[in-house]
Amino acid sequence: MRAEELVETILTGLELDRLDDTVDTFKAGDPAASVTGIVTTFMGTLEVLQQAVALGANFVITHEPIYYGHQDETDWLEGHAVLEAKQRFIREHELVIWRFHDYWHRARPDGIRAGVIAALGWDEWQDEDEPWLFHLPETSLKRLVGSVKERLGARVVRAVGDPEMLCRGVALQPGSPGERGQMEALAREDVDVLVGGECPEWTTCEYVRDAIAAGMNKALILAGHCSSEEAGMRRLADWLRPRVGDVPVEFVPACDPFWQG
Amino acid sequence: MRAEELVETILTGLELDRLDDTVDTFKAGDPAASVTGIVTTFMGTLEVLQQAVALGANFVITHEPIYYGHQDETDWLEGHAVLEAKQRFIREHELVIWRFHDYWHRARPDGIRAGVIAALGWDEWQDEDEPWLFHLPETSLKRLVGSVKERLGARVVRAVGDPEMLCRGVALQPGSPGERGQMEALAREDVDVLVGGECPEWTTCEYVRDAIAAGMNKALILAGHCSSEEAGMRRLADWLRPRVGDVPVEFVPACDPFWQG
Repeated sequence: MRAEELVETILTGLELDRLDDTVDTFKAGDPAASVTGIVTTFMGTLEVLQQAVALGANFVITHEPIYYGHQDETDWLEGHAVLEAKQRFIREHELVIWRFHDYWHRARPDGIRAGVIAALGWDEWQDEDEPWLFHLPETSLKRLVGSVKERLGARVVRAVGDPEMLCRGVALQPGSPGERGQMEALAREDVDVLVGGECPEWTTCEYVRDAIAAGMNKALILAGHCSSEEAGMRRLADWLRPRVGDVPVEFVPACDPFWQG
Repeated sequence: MRAEELVETILTGLELDRLDDTVDTFKAGDPAASVTGIVTTFMGTLEVLQQAVALGANFVITHEPIYYGHQDETDWLEGHAVLEAKQRFIREHELVIWRFHDYWHRARPDGIRAGVIAALGWDEWQDEDEPWLFHLPETSLKRLVGSVKERLGARVVRAVGDPEMLCRGVALQPGSPGERGQMEALAREDVDVLVGGECPEWTTCEYVRDAIAAGMNKALILAGHCSSEEAGMRRLADWLRPRVGDVPVEFVPACDPFWQG
């Protein structure tokens, strides 16, 4: 099976309308190359690519960019030793890399969110009409933070709010979906806590602090961009495995990049 | 002294050319109001405003926005209880709020950076030509993280890299200066570590991870946006005090919003 055929298999299998404008394109390698094995990952870091090679896989499906920017532009990186090392590795091992971001979020259900919900074990608390909203059994913010950290396998989780505050309504917004969307969710009366990946600290963060100072029951949990989305790419591997015959499919975690001082 | 006169005092005292396009404008209150006391702060959160009132100060100089976005737009916040509570508090206490961001960074030296350098105790290590570059006595990343955390008073500091890695060349970029500038600094051979406020986790973060995987001696320390700039607004209070007669001037810390789970 060629890489480009595999992409067709995915898009057709998910019944997705094709987008004219999308970042979901081949970022490196030959789309006509025959696939020896597939690795799915949150982010095709050099370390993930090294692991793919060790697994004998030449096709990497990455949710996020490989060249440090949403459009994977490389012109501004000319002369950067990091870029050269990564491109050399990709070339030497004849890797093919395709980004699967917009489409996976557009799948029904959103593939990233579905994977993260499964990892969190929140299926039964999901709102019937609004899939990003969860009605959890009442718990303290402190316990919720601990649970999110453990279930998502994050090394660093940051929180804003009173650790003893009681939480029930939770807005789940993995990744970095934009500050206004984060604040719109937090404004809702049925939302106590936003669980997200990252946010601009001088916008969403200030909004939560002001809400708390104004006496509202609000909090923010940031699990990190990677930890908050990674499970969605594990889900992709599980979805893909029965659809590609005997081509091996592995999920390789990019892992939380941070440790805390 | 009126608030608008005070702004003149600051801009004239710092010998700053006036900008046509700047976010440094009055965000609330009457610029012609007589100033009873001045509070400088990293961010005019509702909590900081409450402290200003408790101190008897009616003029707040904030480095960052008060309405959750760089341009302090409020139209999209219509109906948000947070906005209403904040505006009501400002109105009831007749506060005047002015933002001091672009100009303070344009001062020579950059007022934020100078305050942060003093807090870090790094004056003697500063490069003569490039004021953002520091040549520290060799230390491990782990020790550097601990030192940055303690001296900046941060509650959460996140790091990427080997804790035992030896660090000498440090790029100091407080706040959120943009991902490409962060990566350009990290690309330099004389820079081992970037010490910053925040960064997009899927760009700068990935760049550092790839550099490490490629065998380079690189690391990233994120002290948080507030902790990485706050000392610069303390410096403003010190600079301002002798220039405003008997008007009281206080620095009120906005404080690291995060705790770690």
